[in-house]
Amino acid sequence: MEKLQVVKIGGNVINSKEALQDFLKDFSRVPGHKILVHGGGKKASELSRRLGITPKMTGGRRITDGETLEVVTMVYAGLLNKRIVADLQKNQCNALGLSGADADSIRAHKRVVADTDYGYAGDVDGVASETIKYLVERGVTPVFCAITHDGNGQLLNTNADTIAREIASGMAPHFEVELTYCFEKPGVLRDLEDDDSVIERIDLSLYEELHRQGVISEGMLPKMKNCFEALEAGVNKVVLGLPGLLKDREQKHTSLSL
Amino acid sequence: MEKLQVVKIGGNVINSKEALQDFLKDFSRVPGHKILVHGGGKKASELSRRLGITPKMTGGRRITDGETLEVVTMVYAGLLNKRIVADLQKNQCNALGLSGADADSIRAHKRVVADTDYGYAGDVDGVASETIKYLVERGVTPVFCAITHDGNGQLLNTNADTIAREIASGMAPHFEVELTYCFEKPGVLRDLEDDDSVIERIDLSLYEELHRQGVISEGMLPKMKNCFEALEAGVNKVVLGLPGLLKDREQKHTSLSL
Repeated sequence: MEKLQVVKIGGNVINSKEALQDFLKDFSRVPGHKILVHGGGKKASELSRRLGITPKMTGGRRITDGETLEVVTMVYAGLLNKRIVADLQKNQCNALGLSGADADSIRAHKRVVADTDYGYAGDVDGVASETIKYLVERGVTPVFCAITHDGNGQLLNTNADTIAREIASGMAPHFEVELTYCFEKPGVLRDLEDDDSVIERIDLSLYEELHRQGVISEGMLPKMKNCFEALEAGVNKVVLGLPGLLKDREQKHTSLSL
Repeated sequence: MEKLQVVKIGGNVINSKEALQDFLKDFSRVPGHKILVHGGGKKASELSRRLGITPKMTGGRRITDGETLEVVTMVYAGLLNKRIVADLQKNQCNALGLSGADADSIRAHKRVVADTDYGYAGDVDGVASETIKYLVERGVTPVFCAITHDGNGQLLNTNADTIAREIASGMAPHFEVELTYCFEKPGVLRDLEDDDSVIERIDLSLYEELHRQGVISEGMLPKMKNCFEALEAGVNKVVLGLPGLLKDREQKHTSLSL
């Protein structure tokens, strides 16, 4: 099977023009088949503020109301996605920006948890792996933003880590997939205050042990859950680290395995 | 050769939610290969106003400064393009939204006319017809917004009528192309005040005669220039009329020929 790299970047890369350009240069040089998934960063909050939209929260989580959905669709699928694509094209990477609605690539449904309505937040049902496969095999690099659709005309705001997991999992029957989450830390840390305390290898039993011991922070739990779900779905390798990892695979990082 | 319909819609369809939904239902029912090109509508001006961006003009033409480019990228490539795509998906049309940066589909260069700098306005250099062809042949319906790129990382605001002409012309070697411009009139009118005065057939010599007589209004001139350029580039048929034309091809309209 051919190899496929699925790489996810978040706010720490997107919020800095220089960091983003450096990253995209490195990404474009990754040989072979690849897919990029990007989160949102602070631009959507900035635009909301400028438009006088008050963030609505429930139980500490943001609710995507109609106005907010407009803002994230404009910023994620419009501004950020097209800037990233144009920059990759400059670097001779034949990028194609996609929301989940495009070519019906990612279907989702509106999240309803017990009595809480999160608004237009989507949980993924599945990805159109054959469609993504034919793009990749034609030398195209899909660039996914975190907007999906429900197949009934409704766009939905979706977590970018989840999208990366779903894309990687959906591609696992077709490619030898490596999923890399780039974030603001060099990996999973034993001590959150010490960037040198990276745990280099974590398997499922160590993960459960670290979880019991409370070593894995609140913020890392959903990310690691995504990683193990991807591995269980057949993804070959999952890696967590700083964006620089793409240029220098020897850089300290965390490798996850079942 | 197989047939391909290229259809362009503008503000009169996009500005009304109901008109847009009706149009997209009709468009999705057009059999065979098809491509949609959409303009901007009033949403970008609304957003600019809400953000306090003052329109900059030169010689009666709008200048796309950096802030305005951000707004049109958000509105055209983000909000409008993804809403249209999600709505077409609802109607079982496998739409894929594209800016010119995506898959390097439309290259342009920054317009510089004599000493006038129009800002980030792009004039089209060419379209990636092989890429668009393979999407179309795979049953995908490309949906183009009016944003292009220069290949060097710069997005550019481009006239949607021009994009429709360039796409249709670029596809002419591969398909029997029909280009339809849907606008707010049932066709080219002898008398602008009388919607019944549609001139049903115009060839190049009649066009030149009407132009000399001053029958063709200022606003229609660039549109008709696009039409004849498309015909000269090998497009089989060019039609001008109301959006309802898509449902009822017997509806009054103007057909253009060389």
